[in-house]
Amino acid sequence: MTYCVALKLKTGMLFASDSRTNAGVDQISCFKKMRHFVNPGERAIVIMGSGNLSITQNAINLLEQAGRQPDKRNIWNVGSMFEVAQLLGICLREVREHDGVFLAQNNVDAGANFIVGGQIQGERMRLFLVYAEGNFIEVGDESPFFQIGETKYGKPILDRVIRPDTPFNDAIKSVLVSFDSTMRSNLSVGLPIDLCTYRQDSLILELQQHITQDDPYFSQISKRWSDGLRGVFASLPNPDWLESTDAQDQSPPTA
Amino acid sequence: MTYCVALKLKTGMLFASDSRTNAGVDQISCFKKMRHFVNPGERAIVIMGSGNLSITQNAINLLEQAGRQPDKRNIWNVGSMFEVAQLLGICLREVREHDGVFLAQNNVDAGANFIVGGQIQGERMRLFLVYAEGNFIEVGDESPFFQIGETKYGKPILDRVIRPDTPFNDAIKSVLVSFDSTMRSNLSVGLPIDLCTYRQDSLILELQQHITQDDPYFSQISKRWSDGLRGVFASLPNPDWLESTDAQDQSPPTA
Repeated sequence: MTYCVALKLKTGMLFASDSRTNAGVDQISCFKKMRHFVNPGERAIVIMGSGNLSITQNAINLLEQAGRQPDKRNIWNVGSMFEVAQLLGICLREVREHDGVFLAQNNVDAGANFIVGGQIQGERMRLFLVYAEGNFIEVGDESPFFQIGETKYGKPILDRVIRPDTPFNDAIKSVLVSFDSTMRSNLSVGLPIDLCTYRQDSLILELQQHITQDDPYFSQISKRWSDGLRGVFASLPNPDWLESTDAQDQSPPTA
Repeated sequence: MTYCVALKLKTGMLFASDSRTNAGVDQISCFKKMRHFVNPGERAIVIMGSGNLSITQNAINLLEQAGRQPDKRNIWNVGSMFEVAQLLGICLREVREHDGVFLAQNNVDAGANFIVGGQIQGERMRLFLVYAEGNFIEVGDESPFFQIGETKYGKPILDRVIRPDTPFNDAIKSVLVSFDSTMRSNLSVGLPIDLCTYRQDSLILELQQHITQDDPYFSQISKRWSDGLRGVFASLPNPDWLESTDAQDQSPPTA
């Protein structure tokens, strides 16, 4: 499985992806799921994929290859992030058309999703979610984040913390807690985590962090969060119910 | 959707279910998803269902109706919880056979799951999960709980807290926190919660609590947990990363 998150805050963006892939539990490997397309001062784009790895990789390969043909519309010359999302959707459709039938013959799921975000000179920062069918949506202001892959375990902390004006450090912390919760509950999501940040109008990536098992900061966050939750749990009051019993049972037939 | 949880601890069992059902977001209603079959001093059985409501209701209706025929094996006269799970699986198969084809014609999912647990005189407490196909499994000691329906949001707290020797009050608290997390993240799970407890060898239900929106204890748990999480989050240290930037971007082709 995979877990990827991207946030679009007022002052910048944050992208994070795990790097575990599995084809059955007996075939687990480590693949980077985040790709950067940066022309410093002109555009900074981050793409993360989840789903069938051959589909996501090859869609990105097509996008990259098309980028070598400057006479055509490509990721390096289109004027908006909207067009980038469009190009990515088209590449995804092309790969699925090429491989989908053959995967279906063996009941292999060809589903794949992307998060693509960043900024192109002359435009604001934008963040899109590209569905398996190649259509896409743009993030809103109310809950300014997208997740793909194993999204549920890590969503509650994002729901509680992330707002458009959340400070960057809090955003990083909430994303790491979100990954920690996900990795605890789903073994097929795992370290290392690739995390990168982008500041509005900088047109270059700010931070590119590769968080491995030995990362002392991540270990500290994970442990403190776990200990903290235990503390809060221990402080919850007990119910005073255990005296009152109310008999509404269904009785056996008397016949 | 639905959320149901059952725990089998060393000293007793705990069952909880929400009561929201929906057929599309414009058709939301309130149905009890928990049924008790209690012959005091002889057997105490609790069944909770998730999935297609007509399927789960009718499977239980069949089970209940068969219970009025004392000359046949039924929920009131079989000697083990294993047989109860078997009977429930058979009823589920019967309903799906009767209705499944017609639902499939309109692409309506006929999936349904049950949790069934309790104790019959002469036997230990037992807890089973009945799958949509009517087969079933029994809970183990390592993670002594089952969930059905919208299981993911509420699983982390159970993973952290529930062990076979968890005290009953802690078990109740963790189940309420689990429901709180689920209801925050999935609108199709909602109050009231039906919660009941069973003490080993009592052969009668101990507590039957119907937790509505106005329940002061649940509101308190929900608020304290939320405030506590915010407190723990606020106490997490900030990363010291935001100076170090590492340039590994992919550059545009120079051609």
